[in-house]
Amino acid sequence: MKRIKISNNVIRRLPKYLRKLDDLSAAGVERISSSELGRQMGLTPSQIRQDFSCFGEFGQQGYGYNVAALHQEISKILGTDRNFTCVLVGVGHIGHSLISHFNFENFGFRLTAAFDVKSDMIGKSLRGTPVYDMNELRGKLEDLKPDVAVLCIPSFKANEVAPILVDGGVRGIWNFTNVELDIPTDTTVIENIYFSDSLLALGYYLSEHLDEVEARAAKQRK
Amino acid sequence: MKRIKISNNVIRRLPKYLRKLDDLSAAGVERISSSELGRQMGLTPSQIRQDFSCFGEFGQQGYGYNVAALHQEISKILGTDRNFTCVLVGVGHIGHSLISHFNFENFGFRLTAAFDVKSDMIGKSLRGTPVYDMNELRGKLEDLKPDVAVLCIPSFKANEVAPILVDGGVRGIWNFTNVELDIPTDTTVIENIYFSDSLLALGYYLSEHLDEVEARAAKQRK
Repeated sequence: MKRIKISNNVIRRLPKYLRKLDDLSAAGVERISSSELGRQMGLTPSQIRQDFSCFGEFGQQGYGYNVAALHQEISKILGTDRNFTCVLVGVGHIGHSLISHFNFENFGFRLTAAFDVKSDMIGKSLRGTPVYDMNELRGKLEDLKPDVAVLCIPSFKANEVAPILVDGGVRGIWNFTNVELDIPTDTTVIENIYFSDSLLALGYYLSEHLDEVEARAAKQRK
Repeated sequence: MKRIKISNNVIRRLPKYLRKLDDLSAAGVERISSSELGRQMGLTPSQIRQDFSCFGEFGQQGYGYNVAALHQEISKILGTDRNFTCVLVGVGHIGHSLISHFNFENFGFRLTAAFDVKSDMIGKSLRGTPVYDMNELRGKLEDLKPDVAVLCIPSFKANEVAPILVDGGVRGIWNFTNVELDIPTDTTVIENIYFSDSLLALGYYLSEHLDEVEARAAKQRK
């Protein structure tokens, strides 16, 4: 695929479009205008047209977007047709939750193995995914050649295990450890889920909201 | 506090600064220039100065930033001194993980209660947090008046429980359900953690990376 550099803001909005298109499909909507899509998503129609124009032309002027075709196109841009494989490292609460409830396949990833240190976990199969001993990690990486590792181990182990993954040929890490990984980013793609950053942002927006409410109330009291 | 509208991109970077400043503190660094901070964070010095200028002047020209003072200032902007309280709804894998491992207090939130439907969970105390029956939710919201609810229930229950939280006076929802909440956003602040969006972004960046590697290899073969 020929690639143009696309801004991170656009990339980050694409999954949001997919979710909305899923909802529209489920509701039986087959076609939607950019203005209606914008209204439902809190974006301007021109922002939507601009987002999509990065990838060529999706819509037909005056006819709106075909919901199924747009979904397929955005999925493809996001690489969901690439048959990526992944392994999950660390079957604690978060790891367990992902194996049990998260549909990796919906997003183009096939989970082939999990690893843990707990003896009562090793040898189990969770929702079809075998759990191996962490000691087998190097060997299994060689066998399975996963594209991605989902890192769910405790923070203090993060930078001990990350280099093993990179040495083992992993090209992407989905990082739930809340620790910045100290590995070269020119050869490995890292996607972090920082719970703390999200909660801090919530704190900011909530503070802002409460200040506005208070300011309005003060104005009315005058 | 007097408020200026600050771009979401800046808000989203502030927690990243805090994490970096924590690391610097831990390493005994007391003062840092914007150019060095930028180098370590992959930002330009002018971007850093611009980010901070939104909130007034932090640094002293030629002296760099005092690490502790900057940390305190950013924390305050994020509202970590507001003594927010929160309750957690749904003690499944994710909820359990948050109660057990996540330090809400580090980010200005005090967790006062949890709620679940499972009889073997109700009545327990997890790391000091009492778990109540979901049936008691309305009454307890009245008693505890939490600012925020952490929503960790299964997706299909999300839009059944969210209105109860809003009716109960909750002003912010930290949403782990992977479902868009259908509640008025002018009175409630919603912060979503969408695992799917993050994994899809990883898929995009990984596809991009692999295409670049392939393109370089093709060029060398010529």
